[in-house]
Amino acid sequence: MVLHVLDLVGVAVFAVSGALAAGRKHLDLLGVVVIALVTAIGGGTLRDLLLDRHPVFWIERPLYLPVILGAALLTVLYAKFFKPPHKSLLVADAFGLALFSIGGAQIAEQTHLSGLPIVVMGTITGAAGGVLRDMLLADIPVILKRGRIYATAAIVGIVLYLGLQALGLVQTWAALLGMTVIAGLRLAAIIWGLMLPIFSLSETPLES
Amino acid sequence: MVLHVLDLVGVAVFAVSGALAAGRKHLDLLGVVVIALVTAIGGGTLRDLLLDRHPVFWIERPLYLPVILGAALLTVLYAKFFKPPHKSLLVADAFGLALFSIGGAQIAEQTHLSGLPIVVMGTITGAAGGVLRDMLLADIPVILKRGRIYATAAIVGIVLYLGLQALGLVQTWAALLGMTVIAGLRLAAIIWGLMLPIFSLSETPLES
Amino acid sequence: MVLHVLDLVGVAVFAVSGALAAGRKHLDLLGVVVIALVTAIGGGTLRDLLLDRHPVFWIERPLYLPVILGAALLTVLYAKFFKPPHKSLLVADAFGLALFSIGGAQIAEQTHLSGLPIVVMGTITGAAGGVLRDMLLADIPVILKRGRIYATAAIVGIVLYLGLQALGLVQTWAALLGMTVIAGLRLAAIIWGLMLPIFSLSETPLES
Repeated sequence: MVLHVLDLVGVAVFAVSGALAAGRKHLDLLGVVVIALVTAIGGGTLRDLLLDRHPVFWIERPLYLPVILGAALLTVLYAKFFKPPHKSLLVADAFGLALFSIGGAQIAEQTHLSGLPIVVMGTITGAAGGVLRDMLLADIPVILKRGRIYATAAIVGIVLYLGLQALGLVQTWAALLGMTVIAGLRLAAIIWGLMLPIFSLSETPLES
Repeated sequence: MVLHVLDLVGVAVFAVSGALAAGRKHLDLLGVVVIALVTAIGGGTLRDLLLDRHPVFWIERPLYLPVILGAALLTVLYAKFFKPPHKSLLVADAFGLALFSIGGAQIAEQTHLSGLPIVVMGTITGAAGGVLRDMLLADIPVILKRGRIYATAAIVGIVLYLGLQALGLVQTWAALLGMTVIAGLRLAAIIWGLMLPIFSLSETPLES
Repeated sequence: MVLHVLDLVGVAVFAVSGALAAGRKHLDLLGVVVIALVTAIGGGTLRDLLLDRHPVFWIERPLYLPVILGAALLTVLYAKFFKPPHKSLLVADAFGLALFSIGGAQIAEQTHLSGLPIVVMGTITGAAGGVLRDMLLADIPVILKRGRIYATAAIVGIVLYLGLQALGLVQTWAALLGMTVIAGLRLAAIIWGLMLPIFSLSETPLES
């Protein structure tokens, strides 16, 4: 119950970030709603398709769609009068990433995956919505490019979560520690500008 | 039977619009065929994956692929000699959108969805092919951007279709009225340039 | 067994090509890994989703993910010291395309598809990973654009493979001949610059 409410809050935060990204590209109202939807449910939907979980989570639980719709429209309304609170949103987004990544990893565990596939599924759940958002906006996804720690925080947290369980810790504590590390790493990355190394090649094409 | 023929005509129209978009980006013949395919069957395929309907519609019914292939190649041939009839295509596309959106909504009803998920599935069926086409062409999807009524017409028509049924109208009549409204709104949008409001934010990035 | 090893080699080659493409766009290490993954397993994953084959191939066989991860990281390391061997990679890629396309067609045959859907599934298996890679990099997919024979080689080889079987040849020989034709056509295209015709329209938009 508490988890479902937290989940809806996370989805709403992702929807707000999608709506703001749509505004920066000057989309129309329909575009805002579509980008908000894709950002908020894209990752979990891809996970459900890959794991053959049906009905897909937002079909099974009817609250997701109205919450996203409401968050997107309120964002448009709010932005008419005030400046969006970018810093608070970044913090909320860090918690959303933590919650979704560990949640996605747990769903993958329930379907009897192990090891790397769990890490992939958790990371997809947390970060693929933002990737799909940027693909729709015809940009190289920001989380692949900037060097800032984002999906990497999810990967570290999920690996820790799996490792702690392998060492005998109960799942609940492993999950809480995993989420703390994800949110903490992400916030640290924002505050101190932690970066991943960039891989830079000259533009010689492979295809010919 | 009549519906299946209409459906194939709609698919052919979407394939032609995809082939023309590929030509405007100077793709090669394979690119033309791929874009025509994605435009014509992308929306229905995404719907079938999300609803776990297998085999996917164009695998189950073998006529779709040859019709699309034929439509794409005839478009290339035709465009060598004549100017494409943009206005007739826009009108045909409006009817294709109406047919696919209500058809997609009916398929969602058969799998016992209700409310908003039906609206989402119908809209995906009618409009997601064009979104995937533009993603492949590395453009922001035109239906999210221009402000012109397109997917919005589908949403209005599907909501009407569901509302009329809730009020007791038989499904066939509700479907016909829903399709009429979709095609009508779309044609009105073309003729009078009806627009959705644009959501414009300055370019300050959320990520940091 | 031999086939599985060849398959892993093919996957590694695709991962290397993905990692190099990521480097040309100056992505960070996470971006390199994601693009390598998508390039290597994107086509097979799309095929498995469309055919409702679960678990998806890289979940079922645990070696794919570490091989791709290793190939991506070794590529970054190697490129720090040496120039990537573009020509050898193009040749290896031609064999990967041949192997995956015919392999994908055989999987489609096992699920009782016939005719055009088999050709589509084989081509997706061989070529869709590269398309997804370019979509993530916000480029028009190179295989749709350049006119160089790539997916077209896959299509020709798969059609030959199906035709030879229809004429009574045993599957193994038909597969070997199909693969030879794909790799041969692709290498011929590289050496002699064989091109598909381009379809060029002026930029008048369809939508209005």
